[in-house]
Amino acid sequence: MIPRAHEFAGDALLLLDQRRLPAKVTWLRYTTAADVAAAIADLVVRGAPAIGVAAAYGLALAGRSGDREEVRQAADRLVAARPTAINLKWAVKRLLARAGAVSDDQLAATLRQEAEAIHAEDARMCRRIGEHGQQLLGERPRILTYCNAGALATGGIGTALAPVYVAAEAGRQPQVYACETRPVMQGARLTSWELTQAGIPVTLLVDGAAAFLLARGEVDAIFVGADRIAANGDVANKIGTYALACASARHDVPFYVAAPQSTFDPHTPAGADIPIEFRPPEELSDRFAEPVSPTGISCWTPAFDVTPRALVTAYVSDSGVEPGGRGQIT
Amino acid sequence: MIPRAHEFAGDALLLLDQRRLPAKVTWLRYTTAADVAAAIADLVVRGAPAIGVAAAYGLALAGRSGDREEVRQAADRLVAARPTAINLKWAVKRLLARAGAVSDDQLAATLRQEAEAIHAEDARMCRRIGEHGQQLLGERPRILTYCNAGALATGGIGTALAPVYVAAEAGRQPQVYACETRPVMQGARLTSWELTQAGIPVTLLVDGAAAFLLARGEVDAIFVGADRIAANGDVANKIGTYALACASARHDVPFYVAAPQSTFDPHTPAGADIPIEFRPPEELSDRFAEPVSPTGISCWTPAFDVTPRALVTAYVSDSGVEPGGRGQIT
Repeated sequence: MIPRAHEFAGDALLLLDQRRLPAKVTWLRYTTAADVAAAIADLVVRGAPAIGVAAAYGLALAGRSGDREEVRQAADRLVAARPTAINLKWAVKRLLARAGAVSDDQLAATLRQEAEAIHAEDARMCRRIGEHGQQLLGERPRILTYCNAGALATGGIGTALAPVYVAAEAGRQPQVYACETRPVMQGARLTSWELTQAGIPVTLLVDGAAAFLLARGEVDAIFVGADRIAANGDVANKIGTYALACASARHDVPFYVAAPQSTFDPHTPAGADIPIEFRPPEELSDRFAEPVSPTGISCWTPAFDVTPRALVTAYVSDSGVEPGGRGQIT
Repeated sequence: MIPRAHEFAGDALLLLDQRRLPAKVTWLRYTTAADVAAAIADLVVRGAPAIGVAAAYGLALAGRSGDREEVRQAADRLVAARPTAINLKWAVKRLLARAGAVSDDQLAATLRQEAEAIHAEDARMCRRIGEHGQQLLGERPRILTYCNAGALATGGIGTALAPVYVAAEAGRQPQVYACETRPVMQGARLTSWELTQAGIPVTLLVDGAAAFLLARGEVDAIFVGADRIAANGDVANKIGTYALACASARHDVPFYVAAPQSTFDPHTPAGADIPIEFRPPEELSDRFAEPVSPTGISCWTPAFDVTPRALVTAYVSDSGVEPGGRGQIT
């Protein structure tokens, strides 16, 4: 079974606690928007589409009171939970707009319906990405992926992993190589767990080994997600993505970027205009049982990198497949 | 102060316990060859040249008995400690040959002198690599390195790090970026520690971030070590080296391989002929406080990769600088 990140029960939102995976599979239950906002801030749920869905349900929980002032305060709290997550703001705004168009006694039902609509649309968007993307895969395709752009990051079957799931449903027997994705280990902790749950064969490797795996001819295609795609086609994604793109070009392994249309940002001209978040240096050391570096060592800690359009074979979105800078799709 | 891996005290060999770095700086004291062999097997000391020096001193300890049979047994034990370490076998053979040429009452002194000669030669070899290599560096050079090919891996100032130390002595103020080097973290645990001890500014990064660091123009040269260099110039080194080479070619950052002449193997025609050791999958998970991947997950775990000569700017050895496949040195 492909896992889900959220379950909505009308009076409560259940979130799979992604901080504890794969050690513990724990569902946490939230009955207030404030608690959902705290869960988003604490990374119980992560991945831009998944955060948007969680925030929508959080606002629906606030709407049960029928009190518009309470809904407004809840919206502020939810938006502040992860200030850079674009889907979060978008989902909350959309619910507020709907709320403004209905009477007080319709408030609760309207917000709930709209949250469920956002979740359903996200699931359909994932499926369309999967259907477009699987056309790029042959039989028994061997796919390399990075970080987690799977079901756990969305309200559906993921973005980069959606083509894998659709190919598997069609009996094409995909297998996946998952880079562990230092420092936060989303590939090891989340991608390899969700694929195992879904019954897809998955092999884990350290990030530095991916180039050699390509050199050995073991990979048919690379699928990664995106945090933002600039107007010129440059792709911001988890730090380490660009290293894969460099190696893939050398070995002529297709490099596909899978993302919903909403990730394409016409207001950012090029990759160089995308602000890169730097993370606290503790992230390089804090998961280990014993110190793995000298105390206070200087660290270079970008959260994202930028892959130029020139290294992208194609962009796979819910609207279809668009060629990148590495030439036409055959 | 540049740290040392070994101290010989005549009646004992002291080894810095590299397994515990950087958490604990512990010197372990060995008085028998059997215990030195066990220390080599247990990775108290690692790095081919450093292992050779340790084994030589181990045999010198056995020689104190004046008993040739005991020396022979000690030699067998030492050689078996790490069967693939070429320097180990070479050092032990060299001591045995010297022992064969002297009388019983000269045995102890001869083995000790020969062990000290091996150590001193290794230190000179490192310094020559450093002197040749630093000519490739400008003022305030920013050097990226991988794994640990430093003082801790040799009987001197290292191979890949030797040019850094020589440039620092000359007042050229080098600074180093150290890739953490998953899965065993030699870059984080050893390189960043030894450079800190030596007073060289060092910045740690996850392996996946190196390509983006090059894209940002932050690196003047890459220096890596080598485990074996084939007759055609292909370089086997720690897994992840090849990914750096791919990115360095794209950004025209020089990629230098620093290694003693003994690493050049005329009997291995090409990189494809170098057998690649695969490591136990537990290495991907065993340093962490909590599980970071599902139990029993399939893992791809090569210890080394191969960088073709075409991506090497130059080879820096104790004999000088030889151009690689990326063109002439200017």
